[in-house]
Amino acid sequence: MTIDPRAGRPAKIAVLGSGSWGTTFAKVLADASPDTPVMLWSRRPEVAAEITAEHRNARYLGETLLPGNITASDDVGAVLAGSDLVVLAVPAQSLRAQLPAWRALIAPHAVVVSLMKGLEVGTDARMSEVIAEVLGLPEERIAVLSGPNLAMEIAREEPTASVVACSDHDTAAWIAAACTASYFRPYTSTDVIGVEIGGIVKNVIALAVGICEGRRMGDNTKASVITRGLAETTRLAVALGGRRETMAGLAGMGDLIATCSSALSRNHTAGHLLGQGLSLDEVTAKMKQTAEGIKSAQAVLDAADQHGVDMPITASVVAVLQGHLSVNDLGPRLLARNLKPEGDHVP
Amino acid sequence: MTIDPRAGRPAKIAVLGSGSWGTTFAKVLADASPDTPVMLWSRRPEVAAEITAEHRNARYLGETLLPGNITASDDVGAVLAGSDLVVLAVPAQSLRAQLPAWRALIAPHAVVVSLMKGLEVGTDARMSEVIAEVLGLPEERIAVLSGPNLAMEIAREEPTASVVACSDHDTAAWIAAACTASYFRPYTSTDVIGVEIGGIVKNVIALAVGICEGRRMGDNTKASVITRGLAETTRLAVALGGRRETMAGLAGMGDLIATCSSALSRNHTAGHLLGQGLSLDEVTAKMKQTAEGIKSAQAVLDAADQHGVDMPITASVVAVLQGHLSVNDLGPRLLARNLKPEGDHVP
Repeated sequence: MTIDPRAGRPAKIAVLGSGSWGTTFAKVLADASPDTPVMLWSRRPEVAAEITAEHRNARYLGETLLPGNITASDDVGAVLAGSDLVVLAVPAQSLRAQLPAWRALIAPHAVVVSLMKGLEVGTDARMSEVIAEVLGLPEERIAVLSGPNLAMEIAREEPTASVVACSDHDTAAWIAAACTASYFRPYTSTDVIGVEIGGIVKNVIALAVGICEGRRMGDNTKASVITRGLAETTRLAVALGGRRETMAGLAGMGDLIATCSSALSRNHTAGHLLGQGLSLDEVTAKMKQTAEGIKSAQAVLDAADQHGVDMPITASVVAVLQGHLSVNDLGPRLLARNLKPEGDHVP
Repeated sequence: MTIDPRAGRPAKIAVLGSGSWGTTFAKVLADASPDTPVMLWSRRPEVAAEITAEHRNARYLGETLLPGNITASDDVGAVLAGSDLVVLAVPAQSLRAQLPAWRALIAPHAVVVSLMKGLEVGTDARMSEVIAEVLGLPEERIAVLSGPNLAMEIAREEPTASVVACSDHDTAAWIAAACTASYFRPYTSTDVIGVEIGGIVKNVIALAVGICEGRRMGDNTKASVITRGLAETTRLAVALGGRRETMAGLAGMGDLIATCSSALSRNHTAGHLLGQGLSLDEVTAKMKQTAEGIKSAQAVLDAADQHGVDMPITASVVAVLQGHLSVNDLGPRLLARNLKPEGDHVP
């Protein structure tokens, strides 16, 4: 079988992972190409059966009706067979363990798109790096998609923009064409690093903003933390080879604002609970979905330290998560003199 | 009388304008220097009497108790006499008409700080330009202050950061020292243009975000509009001689996010009412305070046109205000292809 991803639309699309974002993005792809089969892989057979038979994923998307060209299976081989576009939407920290089993099943010329937001704990690797390493794919066949993309709003077909990035512009454009729906507008970029770092660090900053909110601090403080949060995200992205303009765009600032504004964001909610005084264990127990920022925060700080990048907000969040800093001290520390947004502060 | 503004703290401070921000900033100054007399000028004698006798400005700040070193008067000569720091907080569009009467009353070496956010309709002048022109002051004696500064939160002493800008760094630092309170942290900048433009255009963008909200669009859309709004604000600021870094800081991004997030923002609220289908006249009638963005939007667009700067969100807001664009069409237009945040959009 040879598939040339540059020619026309994908013949078949695979989405591995049936959480809220994977399922929602499968709906986007299916709405974009109503004649193309879109197959979702779910670890749990009962979820796959519900999606195929009832066109729903009640656990994550409630009553949202999925398009008829979506089916699901717990057999990853069936899902990947003949798919020239493969979308990965599994928990970030589980990716490396799952990839080897999929390697031989992915079609020879398929393009792989990561929806995942996280740095791998231990290696500090971005998801696209883990994919390249384990699948042995060249960079022109690996892309990432990120932006101000709260899944529930997209499931409700509220107008949303996003960014698809690949070092090869033609690949990015091919993917963008495959996911352009009436309510979903993807822009293209060649800055994979910037788009990925924006999607990762925003979860850590959202924890900080959530904590401030849980401490009942106001919109002035929150806006300052978001602003300083994007500044430190940008410093890290640039140090890793990403572009400043990307961070000022939808995958940087846009995603950060959406995540920090919304009651739908898991990381924001987790921070809020921490700010109200719950322990990390209590927060984890209370939330049914992963707050990726809790897992990635230390890896982000490690990457920053390795590259000599100052990230005071991330460092404060890590200190709170490790129990070394009280949530009462986080807000004052974030506005303290070690933050110098513009010029010198006069004491 | 000779006053050297570089020597020590101000001997006396005048704040002209007793609206919510003028009164709140007078409180910041008075808390920063409890031994310094701070005098507020109010057009209405009954407001001046209430501030002096009861230490309150109930109309704008409810039950907030003002420090004892604040007094008020409707006699602007008494307020300005001996004041080496003069803060202007009157409605932007009324400034030029009021300045001539004040000119002879301002102490010879006084420094003048503008808290006002607006471009003058007709001339497209920034407030610091109007001050320089009418008062004949050199630029090292004119400063501006702006940031994520919702007045009601500061009145409640919630931690807030801000930016004071003057082309002369020493003047900015002198002012910053005079307004550093436990809950208010000013940073300095020499980019007067950037700080002023950030404070002006954010009101127009907040109208757009409010309209989207009134149309019940979600956080994804709002985040995209805020992100693209800062991009067009930055283009204008840079074209006028401001700095890109300023727009990425508290007076640019920070102020924009605070204004667009908060239910306390007049411009945000006005946009919300427009989005719900009220006419401009109905909105104006309903709001007791000025929504400055409504007045400045056309002047911002004029300035952009003069400098060849593309500002699609501002243009859309102006079209709505003039009745040439329906609020139903604003959201889709803002996400349409004429916005190209990153790279090319693939149709």
